[in-house]
Amino acid sequence: MPDDLEALRASCGRSLGGHGPTRARDLLATIGPETAVDRYGDGGVVAELEAEVSGLLGMPAAAYLPSGTMAQQAVLRVHADRRGRRTVLFHPMCHLDRHEGRALERLHALVGRPVGADTRMITLHDLEAVAEPAAALVLELPQRDLGGQLPSWEDLQAQVAWARSTGAAAHLDGARLWEASAGYGRTPAEVAGLFDTAYVSFYKGIGALAGCCLAGPQDVVEEVREWRRRMGGTLFGLWPGAASALSLLRPRLARMPAYLEHARGIADALRDVEGVTVVPDPPQTPMLHLLLRTSPEAFKDTALELAREGLWTWPAAMPALDPGASRVELSIGEATCAMSPEQVREVLRRFVQPS
Amino acid sequence: MPDDLEALRASCGRSLGGHGPTRARDLLATIGPETAVDRYGDGGVVAELEAEVSGLLGMPAAAYLPSGTMAQQAVLRVHADRRGRRTVLFHPMCHLDRHEGRALERLHALVGRPVGADTRMITLHDLEAVAEPAAALVLELPQRDLGGQLPSWEDLQAQVAWARSTGAAAHLDGARLWEASAGYGRTPAEVAGLFDTAYVSFYKGIGALAGCCLAGPQDVVEEVREWRRRMGGTLFGLWPGAASALSLLRPRLARMPAYLEHARGIADALRDVEGVTVVPDPPQTPMLHLLLRTSPEAFKDTALELAREGLWTWPAAMPALDPGASRVELSIGEATCAMSPEQVREVLRRFVQPS
Repeated sequence: MPDDLEALRASCGRSLGGHGPTRARDLLATIGPETAVDRYGDGGVVAELEAEVSGLLGMPAAAYLPSGTMAQQAVLRVHADRRGRRTVLFHPMCHLDRHEGRALERLHALVGRPVGADTRMITLHDLEAVAEPAAALVLELPQRDLGGQLPSWEDLQAQVAWARSTGAAAHLDGARLWEASAGYGRTPAEVAGLFDTAYVSFYKGIGALAGCCLAGPQDVVEEVREWRRRMGGTLFGLWPGAASALSLLRPRLARMPAYLEHARGIADALRDVEGVTVVPDPPQTPMLHLLLRTSPEAFKDTALELAREGLWTWPAAMPALDPGASRVELSIGEATCAMSPEQVREVLRRFVQPS
Repeated sequence: MPDDLEALRASCGRSLGGHGPTRARDLLATIGPETAVDRYGDGGVVAELEAEVSGLLGMPAAAYLPSGTMAQQAVLRVHADRRGRRTVLFHPMCHLDRHEGRALERLHALVGRPVGADTRMITLHDLEAVAEPAAALVLELPQRDLGGQLPSWEDLQAQVAWARSTGAAAHLDGARLWEASAGYGRTPAEVAGLFDTAYVSFYKGIGALAGCCLAGPQDVVEEVREWRRRMGGTLFGLWPGAASALSLLRPRLARMPAYLEHARGIADALRDVEGVTVVPDPPQTPMLHLLLRTSPEAFKDTALELAREGLWTWPAAMPALDPGASRVELSIGEATCAMSPEQVREVLRRFVQPS
């Protein structure tokens, strides 16, 4: 057997997180052979998905784009240009600040301003400490890097109201809006409805091919389409991703409450395992982070052992603030639901209590 | 029958140009169910295609990107940043200037400078009239909007040498390099080898899903990958487009000389049809433009009539300088090769001599 963990990934028949290993065959099966193709993003299944998403989010319009990176930059550029302001407020751990190579600055001449602290959610107090009038406030629901935490509904309303009172747009980073909706026990439209604009993703919780939608007022979405073209996202055909999203969106969205229940069942089962901490506990959405009392080397050994048994867990752990701990993320999907909380408990036990 | 031409497109079983009507079923069949998936552009079939293209072009490295718009902006940004220069020289009819909403200016703070005139190829004389030191010279081979014309091989060498002598990068817009290669009777590597960097497309002459490669020196391509991430092109999975390109690239590339021969056969057959002018005549690559002596209304009527018979031609004509003429583009592919030059002649005759 190879001892390269990544090389074993393809051989794993099962996975602990999400909807299972990414396989071309499974994803191709989500695209009907009679799919109506678009031309440069116009018509066909792309238009159908855009209508579906604008309906689900209760927003006047939606545009399909290849990636969230592109979608959020585009809409923030629109908000900024319309306001003649250049500053975007966001959580220090958000995707825009951590994973996009300062594209806001380098491509759009916007300036990101992190608000609050890495290790906790943004508070109204953090926002009130911002003196400069900003173009937009971006809120990520749930906050992925904090284990999928959500602000209370009242906090959320107050933060959005603060943004509006300063003339800033309120934009929802809804990469996991589907999960946030289950967490709040509210429809996606109720959550998105607080905001001016929202981005939603289809390849994460939904498990489709890469792609996303940006929803909001008609005029903003139309301008986002102009930026989509400029940024190279108006592909000759966007239909493969859109068709995949459309076929999985409704059924997977309906499963989110079950995923959340399973997340909470897993947290219950893990509560007495020494060396395992669930963040947050109880989980607020169908995802959670785990702090595992183990070294990176021992972590890798266990992941390798499990992969050899056919179960994919993680390619590596993320650093935790505590040097004696490793941090991992667990997104609950169909693959996770195929295991009982006790089975998940047994897998995690092996990371912290190697035999 | 509907009288909306675009609505008839899906019902047409044949097409005059390219490889036939775009159908989900046909394109999905170009992606194997066992395709090795990439993760955020790393590994799998994406790496395989990149290796294939860098080999074909004889360049050290290649990166796959979702679109040529993104690829060319990214590499021009790299060339400009490395030279501390902001000006990009190109033909007034190039994609960068006509179809990207001034993204060079709006996203990258670069300035496009058209060289020469709309209606003819760039000459060395045009370039020598440029006083400012530019970041890059972009040459599009063949020049699509001039019917697929090519500069002579000697002119091409001289223009690239001029760029180098001024310290500018020489970049090839090779959206149709496969066609240019057939036109010059030289390998893609011989043509691309004149340049510092080259972009090639897979959905045009090759007929695959949207996507392209940018090839060049290792360090430039690595930096293009950074811009791909910033521009939102490093999708979670890029494998559908890459797999489609890899399966069609070799077979369709091998057919380019046959497409060119067919283009010339069609031009021969059309030469005595009154009201039809072939540009250029003879064709220099497997594409050509046609000037048809007809009004936009009569053009549409004929296109509609042909679509009702199951043959897709064009959704509309482009304006010609001559108000009494309409201009269309014909790309020669498998669909065109299924018709003899005489059959193509008969189709064109109907546009200029309606019954």
